[in-house]
Amino acid sequence: MASSATVAILGCAGYTGQETLDRVLAHPGLEPLALGSDTLAGQPAWALDPRLDGDLPEFLTNAEAAASGADVLFLCLGHEEAAAFEPPGDAVVVDLSGAHRLCDAAAAVEWYGVSPGAWSYGLPELFPPQGPLIANPGCYATAALLALAPVRHVIASAVVDAKSGVSGAGKSLKASSHAGSVLENLAPYAVGAHRHAPEIAQQLGFPVCFVPHLLPVRRGLLATCYVRSDADLRPLLEEAYAPSHVVRVLPEGMAPELARVQATDAAEIALFHDRATGTAIVICALDNLGKGAAGQAVQNANIALGLEETTGLRLQGVLV
Amino acid sequence: MASSATVAILGCAGYTGQETLDRVLAHPGLEPLALGSDTLAGQPAWALDPRLDGDLPEFLTNAEAAASGADVLFLCLGHEEAAAFEPPGDAVVVDLSGAHRLCDAAAAVEWYGVSPGAWSYGLPELFPPQGPLIANPGCYATAALLALAPVRHVIASAVVDAKSGVSGAGKSLKASSHAGSVLENLAPYAVGAHRHAPEIAQQLGFPVCFVPHLLPVRRGLLATCYVRSDADLRPLLEEAYAPSHVVRVLPEGMAPELARVQATDAAEIALFHDRATGTAIVICALDNLGKGAAGQAVQNANIALGLEETTGLRLQGVLV
Amino acid sequence: MASSATVAILGCAGYTGQETLDRVLAHPGLEPLALGSDTLAGQPAWALDPRLDGDLPEFLTNAEAAASGADVLFLCLGHEEAAAFEPPGDAVVVDLSGAHRLCDAAAAVEWYGVSPGAWSYGLPELFPPQGPLIANPGCYATAALLALAPVRHVIASAVVDAKSGVSGAGKSLKASSHAGSVLENLAPYAVGAHRHAPEIAQQLGFPVCFVPHLLPVRRGLLATCYVRSDADLRPLLEEAYAPSHVVRVLPEGMAPELARVQATDAAEIALFHDRATGTAIVICALDNLGKGAAGQAVQNANIALGLEETTGLRLQGVLV
Amino acid sequence: MASSATVAILGCAGYTGQETLDRVLAHPGLEPLALGSDTLAGQPAWALDPRLDGDLPEFLTNAEAAASGADVLFLCLGHEEAAAFEPPGDAVVVDLSGAHRLCDAAAAVEWYGVSPGAWSYGLPELFPPQGPLIANPGCYATAALLALAPVRHVIASAVVDAKSGVSGAGKSLKASSHAGSVLENLAPYAVGAHRHAPEIAQQLGFPVCFVPHLLPVRRGLLATCYVRSDADLRPLLEEAYAPSHVVRVLPEGMAPELARVQATDAAEIALFHDRATGTAIVICALDNLGKGAAGQAVQNANIALGLEETTGLRLQGVLV
Repeated sequence: MASSATVAILGCAGYTGQETLDRVLAHPGLEPLALGSDTLAGQPAWALDPRLDGDLPEFLTNAEAAASGADVLFLCLGHEEAAAFEPPGDAVVVDLSGAHRLCDAAAAVEWYGVSPGAWSYGLPELFPPQGPLIANPGCYATAALLALAPVRHVIASAVVDAKSGVSGAGKSLKASSHAGSVLENLAPYAVGAHRHAPEIAQQLGFPVCFVPHLLPVRRGLLATCYVRSDADLRPLLEEAYAPSHVVRVLPEGMAPELARVQATDAAEIALFHDRATGTAIVICALDNLGKGAAGQAVQNANIALGLEETTGLRLQGVLV
Repeated sequence: MASSATVAILGCAGYTGQETLDRVLAHPGLEPLALGSDTLAGQPAWALDPRLDGDLPEFLTNAEAAASGADVLFLCLGHEEAAAFEPPGDAVVVDLSGAHRLCDAAAAVEWYGVSPGAWSYGLPELFPPQGPLIANPGCYATAALLALAPVRHVIASAVVDAKSGVSGAGKSLKASSHAGSVLENLAPYAVGAHRHAPEIAQQLGFPVCFVPHLLPVRRGLLATCYVRSDADLRPLLEEAYAPSHVVRVLPEGMAPELARVQATDAAEIALFHDRATGTAIVICALDNLGKGAAGQAVQNANIALGLEETTGLRLQGVLV
Repeated sequence: MASSATVAILGCAGYTGQETLDRVLAHPGLEPLALGSDTLAGQPAWALDPRLDGDLPEFLTNAEAAASGADVLFLCLGHEEAAAFEPPGDAVVVDLSGAHRLCDAAAAVEWYGVSPGAWSYGLPELFPPQGPLIANPGCYATAALLALAPVRHVIASAVVDAKSGVSGAGKSLKASSHAGSVLENLAPYAVGAHRHAPEIAQQLGFPVCFVPHLLPVRRGLLATCYVRSDADLRPLLEEAYAPSHVVRVLPEGMAPELARVQATDAAEIALFHDRATGTAIVICALDNLGKGAAGQAVQNANIALGLEETTGLRLQGVLV
Repeated sequence: MASSATVAILGCAGYTGQETLDRVLAHPGLEPLALGSDTLAGQPAWALDPRLDGDLPEFLTNAEAAASGADVLFLCLGHEEAAAFEPPGDAVVVDLSGAHRLCDAAAAVEWYGVSPGAWSYGLPELFPPQGPLIANPGCYATAALLALAPVRHVIASAVVDAKSGVSGAGKSLKASSHAGSVLENLAPYAVGAHRHAPEIAQQLGFPVCFVPHLLPVRRGLLATCYVRSDADLRPLLEEAYAPSHVVRVLPEGMAPELARVQATDAAEIALFHDRATGTAIVICALDNLGKGAAGQAVQNANIALGLEETTGLRLQGVLV
């Protein structure tokens, strides 16, 4: 590669920010130029994590990082901050928040309090990003869409029962993320009222019944999707992901599990049939911080930059 | 109480056996007469657990315990052993295995390899036991039926997405129960092929699509059930459980969670509606070893003995 | 019992408050009169937990609860609030915070910023409370003292390596209690600088080297204590706990574990010898919220009220 | 690199075998030639893990893999099998079992039932391997030695309180590795009687008091070591690891934790002082399957092959 593209990460001290930095550091074509964090501004990189070495620049404020002139900006911010962000010049911007995911004005206002702009939704295997302003999908939406989008023309409805590790809720301190509430527990939340539901519906073209559950695990997400269909869905899934190095359709009879996708940017998909009720069950497992956030963000940036799509991603390894 | 009924527990060293013993020891009307365990036979009670004191009889073989003349026998055995068991005289027998749950001869043979006999299914709040030979429901079936049976006349199908702690799979050593496979993991299993599915169908009158998932928790089970119905299901649920001290219908908007039912014999049920798809979501949480096994077994025995139904059950307490 | 003593719990919405309420509800001689919580004041009891029924009084402010005229007050407050508390009349007051544990004025000021008053330290098996104002020991201190106090006259120093579940750090929101920091992790903290160290030293008569570690479990605490001694320590331990229904000295060769003491007010102690180095290893397991907090608080209150010491405690059961 | 060295892994289906394969696949100078597993012989590589692609050779028996003519053999076998292994020709052999770790004949027979042979102990930062037959250190021993060996000339004894995830006990099915025994639990085991104790003593030159505890985590190991010394130990530790890219001495006041070393081949070390007792506390965290097993095995092989020591190791990344 002739030269590297420079990168600024805004909100670098959060989970998705740190994971994005992790991929950028492993990426031969990206160079970290500015690390933004309003809480760590002025401190050295290793104040975030002692594994970060001395060659990295010290933290800036998010505003300073935004103005750094980087070729690529990753917005690892809250919805409100991301919504208020003004894209500088012609940089590639990947927004990992939900602020720019909904295209329908009413829905965008209802769920995120923002107006949709010139952003394109970027889920590379299904809905490749168009242009430099990219709305990175939600973690739940990614799993549900990987399972359902390839078969969306032969189904009319779906139930999505999803389970996620606690890092999906971010690093901010909430009673529901307190370890005393999470350990040895399982709890459904935002039942029928989670904002990834309209995002899934937008991309599928019909609403789904979506219920997330909080798992007592640090990372990983599994979506069990139930659909009625007489068609054989396997060819549709295999065709959709045949070219992918990221999404693997498992052989018949094998179920996805978190352990094989944790700390990676890969996803696993499996298809089962329940004969008694004529239900197809499509299950997707991924890491909410990998394919569900930072890995997909870098994948989207690669596409926008014209690089090989999986450069810098965590796709190798057979860790126990 | 004039005098206590004597109890024999067969398979006392397994999870359900130990939990049954726990309830029997707390029960003012039951007296442990014989503790059966083919692996611990001849050893003192505290060989199972140092918390058991010296007044308990030493372990017998299961055959000896069966012949002890006890008034009540709890069968905490594998399906095959339970199927081969010959009920002695007029004792009350509660079978915690699946051997006697299916009434249809073909189904019983297909799923458990046994012929159904003169056993009645005993889920006290919904299907009270009839007579002294009682098939105690499966843990998953209990949760699904508590959620769905009260509304079964207004629905025609259901998806049951269930999640259980590892004790539901018993104490025997299996690769899938190895902590290295369970910790920080989540895995669906027996997708569309679990033997609690025909049990649920038998009691509801129609098949359900049932997918269990193994959670990284020691105990506790949550079933998220999805049904299509235009009826308002809340009155049906509240009416069904109004008299119960075991099953609690939560106030609107509150979701069940494992932490509040673990180590108890209680169950929590909640109802939600997904407006976008017209789906009712009925969620049930219970402890797979409590209401899902030993607690319900003692509840069934109480009914058969004419005792107050909840005597000896773990229903108090507001542990963190 | 002629009549019940009335109880006020201040700080009832925290972990120790809720656990204290749990014991009070199971106690035949105590009656909950006032539930104090500045955050829940004015709300019904079940706002804390849906398992609490409608017969309980609604929440008051802590100041109102303190002025309720109850016979017994449990202070489940932060150190500062407890230090500022003025004991009303002749009530029995059990302070579960650290505010009144240190007798040495300099130490009390250094570690808690308070002056010691007319409070007595109450660890029933070893240091029974004297009078109605009782400082309930810290959870770590309880475990270390149960292991070491019976042998303190034949040892001169000790290493206490302790491991605790996250509920020991309370319900308040801290980065170190966020589930993303706790799950699948282990971290030492406050190394050589924890305020339970001077508390242990005060009761033993010599300092110990104390290092706590945060475990990825909800509840339970284990202290592994290392001492040099040529004496046989087993008779000292067995003698100390022979009369106790709370502390069990395990048979030779059996190690304590969290699972057997969780959700109970009991403690397990074991003694091992390392021949290679001449080290005695005394291990104590207990529940940080049980014997380490609420269980011991009720035990202390029972003593002050002249009741049987273990009334209302969670000492039964052989849960898996 | 002119050409790659070929590799055979015996016992490839166990935890350490799979992790060794993981590093070999990422290693530019090693090529997997033979995957040995007596249970998977004849099956394709992806029978172990669906993430393994079709280019890998199918499984052989361990005997076939041993005879494959590979340049490097990794023995991921039980102690007995490894002890019986005959090194072929002049291959580099790294034994991940304990069979060849103890040099003293009596100790080797007592703890492993084998006679020591021409194997050298290989802990690269402290005791680099000598020659092609390398005994890879135990996971606990690695952590204890990384903490203590640099200061061994100024101390005379130590207490090593160690905590490990369950993968340290291997994949074989044991009651103590059943998830029902591990989850939400903590248990010391082999107290004063673990075979890593003589291994640590052999390398230090004096015995230590060693107590391991089983943690409810999948992977990761932390050793808290207590020593008496008036010397300032920090310069000794920093000097020992200044050249290392594997072992990091943390800045003063920062404690190691599992989360930062899991799934890596790195180790973290910290030093604290307890003023009250004059105790130095040296804490080491590593991944029992990484620096504690497979990572160190590849590091040792690199040295024996004359390659850069850290090639193929997992040392990058700042995962949450």
